Parts: sequence; C-alpha cells; structure tokens
Amino acid sequence: MRVEVIAIGDELLIGQTINTNASWIGSVMAEAGGTVQYATVIQDKEDAILYAIEHALSRVDLVIVTGGLGPTKDDITKHTLCKFFDTSLEINEEILTHVRSFFAKRGREMLDVNIQQAAMPMGARILKNNQGTASGMLFERDGKLLVSLPGVPYEMKHLLRDRLLPILEERFEMESIYHQTIYAQGIGESYLAERIKDIEDEVRGEGIGLAYLPSPGIVRLRLTSERTEHNKKRIDHFLTQISDRLPMYVFGREAGLAKVVGELLKGKQKTLGTAESCTAGSLSSEIVKVSGASEFFYGSFVTYTNKLKQHLLDVREEDLKAVGAVSEEVVKQMAANGRVKLGVDYCLALSGIAGPNGGSIEKPVGTIWIALASKDKVITKQFLFGDQRDRNIRVSVLTALNMLRCELLEINYEKSV
Amino acid sequence: MRVEVIAIGDELLIGQTINTNASWIGSVMAEAGGTVQYATVIQDKEDAILYAIEHALSRVDLVIVTGGLGPTKDDITKHTLCKFFDTSLEINEEILTHVRSFFAKRGREMLDVNIQQAAMPMGARILKNNQGTASGMLFERDGKLLVSLPGVPYEMKHLLRDRLLPILEERFEMESIYHQTIYAQGIGESYLAERIKDIEDEVRGEGIGLAYLPSPGIVRLRLTSERTEHNKKRIDHFLTQISDRLPMYVFGREAGLAKVVGELLKGKQKTLGTAESCTAGSLSSEIVKVSGASEFFYGSFVTYTNKLKQHLLDVREEDLKAVGAVSEEVVKQMAANGRVKLGVDYCLALSGIAGPNGGSIEKPVGTIWIALASKDKVITKQFLFGDQRDRNIRVSVLTALNMLRCELLEINYEKSV
Repeated sequence: MRVEVIAIGDELLIGQTINTNASWIGSVMAEAGGTVQYATVIQDKEDAILYAIEHALSRVDLVIVTGGLGPTKDDITKHTLCKFFDTSLEINEEILTHVRSFFAKRGREMLDVNIQQAAMPMGARILKNNQGTASGMLFERDGKLLVSLPGVPYEMKHLLRDRLLPILEERFEMESIYHQTIYAQGIGESYLAERIKDIEDEVRGEGIGLAYLPSPGIVRLRLTSERTEHNKKRIDHFLTQISDRLPMYVFGREAGLAKVVGELLKGKQKTLGTAESCTAGSLSSEIVKVSGASEFFYGSFVTYTNKLKQHLLDVREEDLKAVGAVSEEVVKQMAANGRVKLGVDYCLALSGIAGPNGGSIEKPVGTIWIALASKDKVITKQFLFGDQRDRNIRVSVLTALNMLRCELLEINYEKSV
Repeated sequence: MRVEVIAIGDELLIGQTINTNASWIGSVMAEAGGTVQYATVIQDKEDAILYAIEHALSRVDLVIVTGGLGPTKDDITKHTLCKFFDTSLEINEEILTHVRSFFAKRGREMLDVNIQQAAMPMGARILKNNQGTASGMLFERDGKLLVSLPGVPYEMKHLLRDRLLPILEERFEMESIYHQTIYAQGIGESYLAERIKDIEDEVRGEGIGLAYLPSPGIVRLRLTSERTEHNKKRIDHFLTQISDRLPMYVFGREAGLAKVVGELLKGKQKTLGTAESCTAGSLSSEIVKVSGASEFFYGSFVTYTNKLKQHLLDVREEDLKAVGAVSEEVVKQMAANGRVKLGVDYCLALSGIAGPNGGSIEKPVGTIWIALASKDKVITKQFLFGDQRDRNIRVSVLTALNMLRCELLEINYEKSV
C-alpha cells in the first residue's frame, strides 16, 4: 500500500510547528506494512489543497490529510474536501450528541463554533473522535482512499490507530518491507562505519540496505530488505554481530536509552539519583520519561550555583576555588555525596560548560565532566562535545546514561567520539 | 521568492527522524522574505530524487535539498545531482585541505571515506562547511537555483544562514508577507476565539488573515497580511488589543515562556529555584534552556519519593500519610521549604500524577498541584490536565512558569483551561 501524507498549515511551512505528525504516521504505516512514499506540507489555501490531493490520488493508494479541522474560522479543510468530492455538509446527529457530551463531561460551556464540528460531508465515512470534537472523514474515489484527520497529534493518533487502521487492514494487501534498527551511543557515524566495514560489505553483498542515521549523541543503523523469512534471519544475524562487536556503544534495537537503563536497574533491584549542574534536571527528567520510573528513581539535586554545590552536596569550597566547578574533583564529590544524601545505589553527576558563554582556553565550551558513584567507587570521565548549548546538554545526558548502562552490564566503558 | 524544501531520507518517512530541518528553513525563509510553498519528504532512491527535483524546479524559484551527503555508502544525493545536472565529481583541493584540517584539529584519524567528501560536482558553486566535512552545493538551471545541504541540523543551518542567504539576497526580489504572532498559555483554542470574537471579526474585515495554532499548553495566534506600512500598524494594533484584554494568558510575541520569565526575574533582580516531584527536573531544565540562566536560577530539588520529600524538603510525614503527595498541603511545604533551602526569592513546586498509571477516582491521572512560594505567601492551584504522561509534564511546566509570570507582573492569575 503506497501512502502519501499531506499536512496542511502555514504554521508548518513557516516553521512555527514541527511536523511530528508525518513522522509518527510514517512509523505506524511502516509497522502496518504500508509505505509512506511522500510526505508533503502545503499552505492552507483552497487551491493548494485541491492541487495536492489531486496529485496525491494520482500516485498512491491512500492519502492521509492532517490539519485544518479545528473549530475556528481559519480551518478550511472540511469545506475544501466537500468541493473536491462534490458534496456538502450536514449536521450529523450522532456526532452532535458526542460533541455535546464531550463538553458536558469536562464542565465546559459549548460554543456555537463547536456545533459546526458536527457538520459532516454527506457520503463520507465518519471516524468518531473520542479524544476531541473534530471527527475524521474517509472518502473514496476510483478505489483509492483519502482520509482527513485533525492536526492535534493525540487526536490524529487516536483516529488513525483506532479507526483507520482496522479499515485499511480489511481493504489493502499490505506490502512487505522489513527493517530493523540498532541504536548506538558515544560513537560517530564514520567511526562506526569504519569499525564494521567488513560486516557492511557482507550486508550489501546480500542485497540488504544499510543506512546510518545520526542525531545528537545517537547513531542509528538501519537494515532494510524485502520481508522474507530468510532476510529476517540474516538481518537479525548481522545486527547481533554488530552489537556483539561494539557492546559499549550499541544499546539496543529501540530508541530510549533511559528505558534500557531503567530495565537494567529494575532487573538488579538497584536505585538511581542524579546531581546535576549544567544539565539542570535534563538527566532526571529524561529518566522519568519512562512510566514506572518511580520503581528505581528516587530524586536529584540540581545545583546550578557553587554555593548550592557546597550547601546541598558538601562539595569542598577549597576545591571549587582551586579547580572550579567544572573539574574532576567537584563532579566526583557531587556524585559520591549525592549518592549518600539521596540514599541510592548509583548517582550520576554532571558539571560542564554548556555554552555559548562561559568557556576559557583551558575549559572551552563543551567541556563536560561526568561521574558515576556506586557503593565501591566513583568513575569519572571528561568529554569535549561542541559549541551548541542544547546539543551539549542532550549529548551529556545520553553519555551519562550510557556510562551507567556499561557499568550495570560490566562493560569496560571506552571513551570515544 | 517561492521555495520548495525537499528532504531526502527513508528515516524521515518511516518516522525515525522528525523533519525539524524543514521547519527551521521555513522560519528563516519567512523572515528573509521568501515563502516556502511546499515541503516534501522523499525516499533516498535515485528515481524519487530525480522526479522530485524536476517537479520542484518547475514550480518554484529555489529548491533546497537536505540530506544524503554523509560519508557513508548510503548517501546518494551527490551522485544523483551529478546525473541530473549532467556533470561529474572531481576532488576539490581547497575542500580537501579543509576536511584534513577538520580532522587534525579534533585529533581524529581521517578515514578513506572522508576524502570522498572533497569530491565535488564540476560546475556547481561550493558552499564551504565550517561545522563539518560535507560541503553544500549550489546548482543553477534556467535562472532557478537548487542547493544541496547536509541533513545534520547544525551544519545545514550554518550553510543556509552563512553561505546561501547572502547569495539569495543578491539574486532575488524577496516577497513581502508580513506576519506576527502572539503566544498564550493556559487557555484553549476555542475559548480564546470566544474571548476575542469581536476583534477577530474586525481583523478579518480588514482582510488580515488569522490562525490559531495549538500545541500542548500553548496557543499561538498568528495574523498575516501583505507587507505594507498600514498593515503592519493594524496588526500591531490588534495584537496589542488582544494582549491587553487577556494579560493572564498572552505572554509575548515570541515562543519561550521561560525566556520571558527569566527576563522579568533579571529585571527585578530576583532569584528562582524549583522543587519537583512528577516533573522530575523538566521545569528546571526548561528554565536553563535560555543561556545566562545562572544570573537568576540557583537550583532544584527533585524529590520523586515520599522519603526524599521528607528528608530533603521537610514535608511532614503525617501530611503525606493523611492526604498523599499529590495534595495542596504537600506542594505548599515543598515550595515554602524549597525556597528557604535553596536561598531563592521564588520557588515553584509541582506534585501530580503524570500517568498513565497511579490515578484513582479522587485523584485521576492528570491531577497536578502547583505552588509558588515567595517571601510573603504561597499560592497554590490544582489542575486537571489529561491522560498523557508527556503532555501532562509539558503542560505542568508551562503552567508553573505562567503562574510565576503573572505573580511577577502582579496579574491576578485566573485558572482556566
């Protein structure tokens, strides 16, 4: 099944909103056996919408349109679709009842514009939205489907997963591309390629596609082939080979290093806390992104000032004066004392210069010290990341998590780039 | 100047990577006076690339292609562009020197594949990449331009801003769309529309476009028109009118509530800390996203367990037992005691049930208590957000920041949806 995703909205084109919907739809379709061949963003103008859907219906089997279904006057998708499919709107009583009860349940007053959300194109199949008031609409032309979904991510996701997918599974022969990905932390794209050169040659020799996908602090390596039992086994074999060769970098087959670390901690019944300076809670908030983190995560100290490093974490004033907050001595005390004060088995501490200001010749922007304290020892490492604040914080968080992962797995952590 | 952005990469279509590049390019182009009319994502296959660039060159003045310029074998953009523009690759000595010194500076070994990054299409204008080893390439055909940039965001941004924009400014008459946005926190899209109905009618009556752009915790309201002095004044007038009517919600004309709050704190020479349970450092890390936060931000307690609430923040055990951690009593003590222990003027505290588990009939998932302690008082508010963990954490962080903003501006904070 060939799919095109069309997102409508000037806010996407002028960069005020990031098109996360298209990514999510792509991943769900890939899993369901469809292939998103095109993802397009267009202006919310009638002619642009009409042109794009005409074009899309000529080249794919399913067109997924997102956005422009809200209650406000700038939302023109529904009217434009009526024009394209030569139909008109009519109040749908079932949907009206749903919209009314939606507002009633939340104790909110129902506005006139909300009644219009129950106006539905005649002839379209209506996909009821349990998460909101904008229904999905499914149109058909010459055996091809077009579905219109709201742009609000969680409403779109609900309608696609719970309403559209069951219909697609009945209607289409799903295609069969197989892909598997492994995730690596702490190694750059070309270094990874160099370390697995021989495996890569073998992979390509068997007609399996291989792609490196870098993002801050993480490289993903994806293998792709036609979905046959033979290929599945080969891909599994190659990915296992790579993981076995580079255990200090490769952390799994799914995104979410925090989840991997959390599972390891739960398995060993160990607990975790953090003591953060430059990352200021980014590490602890990353850890609790995974639901159920309260089983192993106790808490953190965010000590952004030197004074709080002294008062809350008993960092020695003379060390702060002599070598500064971004130093092995200080990060070591943060981790060791944080561990005791939080009452945890492991404590990760970070202190660094996230930038863009605050660097010096000896300690340039991007210098980060990370320490990991456990019962018997404190491991420390110095890193030099880059000159971008956001990226430095993100990479520091991932690096710290990977240090802990290696410790939990008794892998000798090797500093790399 | 009409622009199309083409992003190449299966990882974008199967949803492993979010296409943040397209958004960023859209915002920069809009500012520079260009209009991104289409943003397209295609597979990294030769025929898909050839088709998309042919199509794009037929409908816009400038095509910006991102991705597929890395050193690994799966990166095919450069070869495909050579085919399209009927040219071939040749080692560019200046770029080779640059690539060599790039590796030398970082003390990294240079690999064979990296030398190939200096192979450049003859006839293209080369845009030197100071941030990495993949150069940009600018091609021209029939008065239209196509530029190929790497997909790594910070390299792409550098090349577009520092290399491409100066060329465009010389070449093109930039178009003239004017848009201004205001940002509101704590009010839903349709409620906002209801509150400014009369202004909206007037705006539309003058032919000015108006769009509501909701995202978790924030609604943006954008006014758009042709760029004339008259329109600029009218848009400014209307936005001021809306801000004046809804000061507890509208926080500014730029994204970044944390930045607004930071500026207010700096202006009043006040300091801030946080005491977080369910958000676990998300609030403090949001605060320090703005460089220079150390001027007003001291630190935080992340107390995920009840024990740490007692030990670090002196929350009374009997209150935890009687009313639980998600309660007015507890969040009040977290804020008040956190303020003293951190030595700050203001302390924001949060305790809630982020979900998806842990809810009950009395305290469903999405129940969040927020407290703001200052010298004289502690303000508390209870909220009921929704059932999604990420969203609840994000909205809690924004709501807490807006409570503080209102306090600093002496606006009577009115709880809304």
